Amino acid sequence: MRISAPIVESLDSILPDEPLLMMGAGPVPIPAKVAAANGIVINHLGETMSRIIEQVKAMSRYVFQTESSHILGVAGPGSAAMEMAVANLVAPGDNVLSVCNGFFSTRLSEMSERVEGNVTRFVIEEGKAADPLLVEQAIAKYSPKVLTIVQGETSNTVCNNALPEICRAAKAAGCLVIVDAVCTLSTMPLYMDEWGVDAVITGGQKGLSCIPGVSLVAFSEHAWDKITSRQDTLRHWCLDAKLADKFWYQSSYHYTAPVSGIMAIHEALRLVCEETLPGRFDRHLRCSLALQAGIEGLGLSLYADKASRLNSVVGIHVPKGIDQKTILARISNDFKVEISGSFGLDIVRIGQMGEQCRVHNIFRTIHALGSTIQGLDGEANLPRGVAMLEKALQEYQPQFV
Amino acid sequence: MRISAPIVESLDSILPDEPLLMMGAGPVPIPAKVAAANGIVINHLGETMSRIIEQVKAMSRYVFQTESSHILGVAGPGSAAMEMAVANLVAPGDNVLSVCNGFFSTRLSEMSERVEGNVTRFVIEEGKAADPLLVEQAIAKYSPKVLTIVQGETSNTVCNNALPEICRAAKAAGCLVIVDAVCTLSTMPLYMDEWGVDAVITGGQKGLSCIPGVSLVAFSEHAWDKITSRQDTLRHWCLDAKLADKFWYQSSYHYTAPVSGIMAIHEALRLVCEETLPGRFDRHLRCSLALQAGIEGLGLSLYADKASRLNSVVGIHVPKGIDQKTILARISNDFKVEISGSFGLDIVRIGQMGEQCRVHNIFRTIHALGSTIQGLDGEANLPRGVAMLEKALQEYQPQFV
Repeated sequence: MRISAPIVESLDSILPDEPLLMMGAGPVPIPAKVAAANGIVINHLGETMSRIIEQVKAMSRYVFQTESSHILGVAGPGSAAMEMAVANLVAPGDNVLSVCNGFFSTRLSEMSERVEGNVTRFVIEEGKAADPLLVEQAIAKYSPKVLTIVQGETSNTVCNNALPEICRAAKAAGCLVIVDAVCTLSTMPLYMDEWGVDAVITGGQKGLSCIPGVSLVAFSEHAWDKITSRQDTLRHWCLDAKLADKFWYQSSYHYTAPVSGIMAIHEALRLVCEETLPGRFDRHLRCSLALQAGIEGLGLSLYADKASRLNSVVGIHVPKGIDQKTILARISNDFKVEISGSFGLDIVRIGQMGEQCRVHNIFRTIHALGSTIQGLDGEANLPRGVAMLEKALQEYQPQFV
Repeated sequence: MRISAPIVESLDSILPDEPLLMMGAGPVPIPAKVAAANGIVINHLGETMSRIIEQVKAMSRYVFQTESSHILGVAGPGSAAMEMAVANLVAPGDNVLSVCNGFFSTRLSEMSERVEGNVTRFVIEEGKAADPLLVEQAIAKYSPKVLTIVQGETSNTVCNNALPEICRAAKAAGCLVIVDAVCTLSTMPLYMDEWGVDAVITGGQKGLSCIPGVSLVAFSEHAWDKITSRQDTLRHWCLDAKLADKFWYQSSYHYTAPVSGIMAIHEALRLVCEETLPGRFDRHLRCSLALQAGIEGLGLSLYADKASRLNSVVGIHVPKGIDQKTILARISNDFKVEISGSFGLDIVRIGQMGEQCRVHNIFRTIHALGSTIQGLDGEANLPRGVAMLEKALQEYQPQFV
């Protein structure tokens, strides 16, 4: 018996006429140039693609702040870039210290276990950043060959501000450091070479304001030495860095590259270079601080302490007596603004990554959030929220340019 | 020292004003609807995405010709879908019989070895299809738990026509069959349930005429039983089918789905459903046979025997005294038509997949190929080539509708 074709609705009828403004924890809105580039397909090999790849690598070196010649694109989600870093740097039996601040940092530890690392989880108190002294003690105790850590833990909006000190301690102990910068890269400082990071991972759909599904990973020379000196064969084929190097540095073939996604990431990186990193860091910090001031102006409270607060994604305690899921449903239905819940915590999250981080988007979001809470019989002082947002915008002093 | 931003050329200045017509072994041109859909980013979770995913699965069941409720999307190339099938179905120590007709079928055997399968390669004479009786004997000899095979070997244009008989022999011996249908799905018959295939793999950028970077894999109930009954933990995290099932069947989270790519594949599948499989099989067969007639009309000879010739990608012996690379360079420079070389063989390859397979594209390609050969002082009878192409188009009798 043959299977018949189903009757399907057109995408147009499924997608809402007025698109939702994506102010959640990602994906984020993409610039028009990125969307247009993502519609282009050319040959995955040959001279034209080589020129584009060269530029993607050159721009990546700027965005990652590294001279490394081991930056690889990954046809896959940010999680595939995480898995690529782990699978290539964690050899079976290696001691791994995983700094676990939440959902995504724990994913790094799980991936490390799957490739037979001997993993110790260094679990941080919920809502806090890693203390560099305690991490240093753990490094001394467990002698890890690899340390995994997130710069920003998207799941609960905690930022590991002490990343430079932690990298320094690891380096002193001869330990490689893998940093997940999926939501942070290009939104706040990360100086790969200066800080001595050995692998930095990023996805497309967060800080870079690109599409989900094409990611980047940068390896240091030290990391690359370990990769090339490994004698065992990786279980992974697509994520084998030595195979990927054929495409990214030897104009040769690994698998068919995600051509349109590479075009999109080319444009996303170009926009970062044009804005400059300092300009971008200031835009993100200004908008995020203003958003935070606006939220506090409404009378709501932020989840993470100021000292360990991630600016790329802002977490807000759900007001007592109101249901988190109801807030999310109402804000998208009534105001066409989409924000996120979390993984088990009673918070809602607002993203401030890439195109999310624009003044008009923050005003719209504060208004939508305040009105939603009011509509649910909660208290939200909208005039004060908007005023504090505006005041923070005006008073911001550039720190990076 | 900080790294400065590089000076980059704009994509517009790198991409040629007149795009090359992609008539190689993939990627292939994409329909306008697919390109437009690939520019859309929405939330990767939630009701809108769920409706789109339901339609992608329903349309996939038609295109794969299966009632299976284990069709998964993969954020990655066709090779990632291959690796997903292998990693989930080949347990360490399993006997695997890999039918090797060339480059891509051998890749399946390499992936099987990496996940610790006990692999026997059944190597087919260059240019020939697998003989079902010999495969049956090999199954009896090696008692494999898994057999890997390609429907069409893109690298050398050989088609394993006896796939139904081979699947039947494997099934009788209790062996799971993994079929790579990256270049063939929707271009020629493949009836997953009827033939008893346990895993079918396809990529975006070939038969489906979609973007490279988002792929599909369909598992049979029998295959799924093996996946769910495995007690060991896969080394692979992104390609773990049990984790992917959370997103594709449980409206839950695995990794951030490649939203725009899923939109694109939705449209690519919708166009297949609209054209119908029989209509599409006939379009492909008619165009490919006409192309083959045109090539022979030019006076060139085809690589694969008629009995084992893949219609999706046509291989042509390079005429004596002419250099393969020179043909490829000239045809793209002078005629803006891109065709492929091969992996070590002295052939050029012309694709007939999806949008490549249109009458106007074949005429343009035959003209470009014949003129290129003439320009290189080779012999090519263009009037006869074009006449035979036209004759074959006119005389084609639909076989599927």
